[in-house]
Amino acid sequence: MKRLKVILMVAASALLLVACGSSNNKSAGTTSNKNTQLTGQAGGKNYQGVIKDGHYQTSKSRGVDIQQNDNQFNLKGFQNGLLGISKQNFSTNKYVFQEGQYISTDTTEKWLDRKSKQNPEGLNPSQQKGKVTPMYLQQIDEQDFLVPDGNKTTMKGMTIGLGINSVYYYTKQKYGSQYQQKIPDDVVEKQGKEMANTILKRLRQNKELKNIPIVIALYKQAPNDSLTGGNFFASSVNNSGTTSVNSWKPINEKSYVFPIADGSKGPNTNDLSAFNQFKSQIQNFFPNLSGITAQAQYKGKQLQGMHINITTQFYSQTEIISFTQYLQNAAQKYLPANVPIDITVKSTDGIQSFLNRNSGGKTFSSHVFNSY
Amino acid sequence: MKRLKVILMVAASALLLVACGSSNNKSAGTTSNKNTQLTGQAGGKNYQGVIKDGHYQTSKSRGVDIQQNDNQFNLKGFQNGLLGISKQNFSTNKYVFQEGQYISTDTTEKWLDRKSKQNPEGLNPSQQKGKVTPMYLQQIDEQDFLVPDGNKTTMKGMTIGLGINSVYYYTKQKYGSQYQQKIPDDVVEKQGKEMANTILKRLRQNKELKNIPIVIALYKQAPNDSLTGGNFFASSVNNSGTTSVNSWKPINEKSYVFPIADGSKGPNTNDLSAFNQFKSQIQNFFPNLSGITAQAQYKGKQLQGMHINITTQFYSQTEIISFTQYLQNAAQKYLPANVPIDITVKSTDGIQSFLNRNSGGKTFSSHVFNSY
Repeated sequence: MKRLKVILMVAASALLLVACGSSNNKSAGTTSNKNTQLTGQAGGKNYQGVIKDGHYQTSKSRGVDIQQNDNQFNLKGFQNGLLGISKQNFSTNKYVFQEGQYISTDTTEKWLDRKSKQNPEGLNPSQQKGKVTPMYLQQIDEQDFLVPDGNKTTMKGMTIGLGINSVYYYTKQKYGSQYQQKIPDDVVEKQGKEMANTILKRLRQNKELKNIPIVIALYKQAPNDSLTGGNFFASSVNNSGTTSVNSWKPINEKSYVFPIADGSKGPNTNDLSAFNQFKSQIQNFFPNLSGITAQAQYKGKQLQGMHINITTQFYSQTEIISFTQYLQNAAQKYLPANVPIDITVKSTDGIQSFLNRNSGGKTFSSHVFNSY
Repeated sequence: MKRLKVILMVAASALLLVACGSSNNKSAGTTSNKNTQLTGQAGGKNYQGVIKDGHYQTSKSRGVDIQQNDNQFNLKGFQNGLLGISKQNFSTNKYVFQEGQYISTDTTEKWLDRKSKQNPEGLNPSQQKGKVTPMYLQQIDEQDFLVPDGNKTTMKGMTIGLGINSVYYYTKQKYGSQYQQKIPDDVVEKQGKEMANTILKRLRQNKELKNIPIVIALYKQAPNDSLTGGNFFASSVNNSGTTSVNSWKPINEKSYVFPIADGSKGPNTNDLSAFNQFKSQIQNFFPNLSGITAQAQYKGKQLQGMHINITTQFYSQTEIISFTQYLQNAAQKYLPANVPIDITVKSTDGIQSFLNRNSGGKTFSSHVFNSY
């Protein structure tokens, strides 16, 4: 009888796994041409995506953001951060994700441009004669959240992210030298909040968006030479029908690059010294490590996660395997506990191996990239 | 009482985990300057590596193989395959791995060169006047296996891999056009076996290598334009003191690239059609997928594993997340069961996401590369 109970417990958890697996498989690869399907969910932490007529529903303004960003970290960081904000407002269990379908490429380009006679919708200020007039708004991202019901989905929520420049880059003539002007934080904030009101008002004119919650979040873009992206600094939930933002909630997040330059300390000296110890251990261990840097994400003084990047020249697959094993143990020993950490090992031939510890995980898993 | 038993079972497995963890940590990052340490083992499937005087012990002929190979797949495939052969002969539990310390860079270069008055040790034939004389031996890899005992390790086994060309590439004058000459399989085999005898005899002259088992394996190099590496075709275990190979064991392994070109079928049509179905499903699902190829490894007609490579232009992080979720389910549904499979998703910016199912695993795990 005792044994039976144990077996039943194991059987129950196995069933649970099977159940998840099969519900996933049902939605994958369905190619009916009339219905809306979902991508399937890999783990419970991400949204399922919308498939229309057998194809993934790409964004209406697909690619505009990419052209807008000289610093690619501002792109990934912005989109990931915005998705995190969406998850706080639209549960991944209830809602499915759709790439923005309401703000078109044309509209996005108009909004991102300067205001002028030809472009009355421009959200950036019109160029003043003989005066440096910064472009504030750099990128817009729209995320749609739908509730599925059988073969139909209904639009039930939206998140808008606005990326505001902290530095304005400009040239005095075409192909001339690049100049830059810092934009103070209070200006970034003021501009972002004003634009949010304008955008909210415009979106509400669309019938489908009149009575849904629209979340708007403001992101301060990192300078082009930064090794991390910028940071979200405010968000607002705007309930059904509202045409201006009632209240902003500050977001106290910031990304740092480790090692930190010229003697400054970052928000937490323990994390930094943990990283430095890890770094010197592995540099001592292995020759030819040309670079070890990390992106560290903070909420206030609290570390949220790290991406560590190791670049080197490797001479053999066995070196990569040994190095990865060593890293797995050294990371466990030296790096801060209780936060998600990724470690990517690259050579000139691309990624060689990869380690990670998930949020809540105790140990690092690793993978060495192979070839036949 | 019933509950107690369950708790005890859980506690026992937790202890097991803790025990593994701590023994790993002990060896990581130890930097004493007098002893030999080990890298620690990540999972039980790889060898621990040797650390001497706090540094990883790199190969004595480090880098020579890289210069020798125009097709990098021949390098990774060779080194990985050789490690697999080593594991069949030297258990990862008993032995630790050391990069080759007995054949130096100088010796490797001499052996790989043509035989001549200046280089009597050359294993490739001397250039015959007015006649195309192929270079057969392309690369040599040495792997050492030691048994640890406290702070000491003792050399107890060696594996040697020889990479033999299946195509000889040559120019008629410096910087002239490249010509090629196919080398028939029986010549590849004959040349490899002769060189193995010569090398075994030379190695036995070193006192330390006189009385250990030396495994020698022969690899047929893939042509330079191949999208996979070559394959091992024979191996031999040479016991203590033997100076020529008594018997060769054939290895019936081969790598294929999927989709297979011009109507040929590969060793197993089921695997190929599974891959093709997977490919057309995901191409239908997602726009802009520019390439989906796979390396498939076979032993006889039996699939051993696959590396799938997907290249595309992505426009946002959310597209990558959705695509990866879809892949996870489609891979589970369409790809051959019961073999290890890796899927790498790349764009021009490098790796975007990665999925894998380990040997014996039932489901795919996935990781999307992020940035702060």
